[in-house]
Amino acid sequence: MFFEGAEKKLELQLKSAAASLRQLPQPFWAEFVACANAEILSHIHNDFCDAYLLSESSLFVWDDRLLLLTCGKSTLVTAATWVIENLAVDDIASLRYQRKNEYQAQLQASTFADDISQLRHYLPGLAYRLGHLDLHHHYFFFAEHAKVSSDSRFELLMYHIRGELADYLNTAVQTEEGVLKRLQFDGLLNDFQFDSHCFSPFGFSLNGIRGEDYLSLHITPQGKHQDNCSYVSFETNLNSQSLLNALLGHLLGLFSPSGWDVIELNLPSLTINQPQYSCLSQSKLTTVLGTIIGFRQFQQCDTETLIPQLL
Amino acid sequence: MFFEGAEKKLELQLKSAAASLRQLPQPFWAEFVACANAEILSHIHNDFCDAYLLSESSLFVWDDRLLLLTCGKSTLVTAATWVIENLAVDDIASLRYQRKNEYQAQLQASTFADDISQLRHYLPGLAYRLGHLDLHHHYFFFAEHAKVSSDSRFELLMYHIRGELADYLNTAVQTEEGVLKRLQFDGLLNDFQFDSHCFSPFGFSLNGIRGEDYLSLHITPQGKHQDNCSYVSFETNLNSQSLLNALLGHLLGLFSPSGWDVIELNLPSLTINQPQYSCLSQSKLTTVLGTIIGFRQFQQCDTETLIPQLL
Repeated sequence: MFFEGAEKKLELQLKSAAASLRQLPQPFWAEFVACANAEILSHIHNDFCDAYLLSESSLFVWDDRLLLLTCGKSTLVTAATWVIENLAVDDIASLRYQRKNEYQAQLQASTFADDISQLRHYLPGLAYRLGHLDLHHHYFFFAEHAKVSSDSRFELLMYHIRGELADYLNTAVQTEEGVLKRLQFDGLLNDFQFDSHCFSPFGFSLNGIRGEDYLSLHITPQGKHQDNCSYVSFETNLNSQSLLNALLGHLLGLFSPSGWDVIELNLPSLTINQPQYSCLSQSKLTTVLGTIIGFRQFQQCDTETLIPQLL
Repeated sequence: MFFEGAEKKLELQLKSAAASLRQLPQPFWAEFVACANAEILSHIHNDFCDAYLLSESSLFVWDDRLLLLTCGKSTLVTAATWVIENLAVDDIASLRYQRKNEYQAQLQASTFADDISQLRHYLPGLAYRLGHLDLHHHYFFFAEHAKVSSDSRFELLMYHIRGELADYLNTAVQTEEGVLKRLQFDGLLNDFQFDSHCFSPFGFSLNGIRGEDYLSLHITPQGKHQDNCSYVSFETNLNSQSLLNALLGHLLGLFSPSGWDVIELNLPSLTINQPQYSCLSQSKLTTVLGTIIGFRQFQQCDTETLIPQLL
């Protein structure tokens, strides 16, 4: 039942003179995500953004940028090199490539080091690790060649979820409507258009768009089995500090994770007041072109008593 | 400069009627450790124990049991299957095989799952994981076929060491005498016979024996480089609670790790009073034949601010 929920992320921004990415036909995006061993399950769109729900996570396409998240054993770097080859390299203002440390790194098709050596064939860039190797850590590769319009991203990554919603997600009977209702986003995320999918036997994905805003929520709920690999990721380009704080508190309340990470891209550090958790480590990085990445890892304050897992 | 300090461990105990392991000639042990890609650098012995210092950690041989620790990319399971084949399987009362989660699991020759599927060709047994996958965790395989004489082990595993001794160990000029002096074991570990080795460019190993007692200390000091993979392991079959507490405090004071694990085999849980650290998780396991393994992970209470590592 092991499933690697941790996402790999590719973000590409084009120079302002480049043709719109949204002019590209859907078969282009189907081939793109197929390179990562993913497929398009459904999509929604508005005047600014096309959001594709994938068999392994999500693809968002705006006129001048794209964001592809893939989880499991997906081969995101292959999609990255494919899209670089199929766009004009000179049109690329910025490429960011990101990997979280996986629960089971040895099951992945490649390491981050392998991936960036492929990317560097196309685009020079700098790579970093934020976080100690023995705890949560995240890898970033930045190939930034021109200033891009201001963008931001807030990521909340939750590990080992517990409680009613976690229990519900581990049953065989969950439905999209059932999960959405239990997420209780009303009042927090008004006017968003949502697209969601329940996977068999477990797993739930949600894309949401509103104008240029996006959000993405992916749940790997497996917590009742030997692998105990439950993981939930939430990310958005919403940047209101009060809204982000409300979302953080809401999601922590819903999922009651034993630990979680916050990653902030071009955002001031959120003032976090979650007294039941303590911050184990933090790290911040500013790239040559001024992109700021902040990472913090939080863990519940009380000692967690774990049941030995029979393998 | 990356080096995987995490040890794999093999412990074998023979039935009382079996011939003494110490009768086996040194070439036997040289071939044994060579199966794990290690070699014997030096050895010490007394009336109860032969202690071999290896290119990757340590081998201890008593009349009725052996303990082989190997680090780096060593292939301990190959040594395990070799020794099972070269001893009489029916003489084996108990085999324990143990792996810590590595800093870089994807660099290892095999996974724990691979290893136990090999071991199960020879000996049935149960395998467990103690600890969450996203934090420190340890794998154990127990093939226990007969009660063995009471044995105990205390392990202290320290991550990300800091301070004067860490700085000294990261210089090119450390010597065995220099490290031993700085370890300040006088008064704590009297009458032990020591054997130690400094590795080039970094690394230090120490074996100690006194009667049937043993201890082993292995230092991977690399903390000044991008990999920041410093790691120190200490283990012993000493079982005095007051002495173990004194050793714990002494070693934490010397190495000032950002986090550490305690593993206790057939020992009551040490009452730990280290207020600058908090316990993130604990887990305890009792095997069918009554072997008790306890695991606890401690992390410094204050948020650690980490410098992004350029890769």
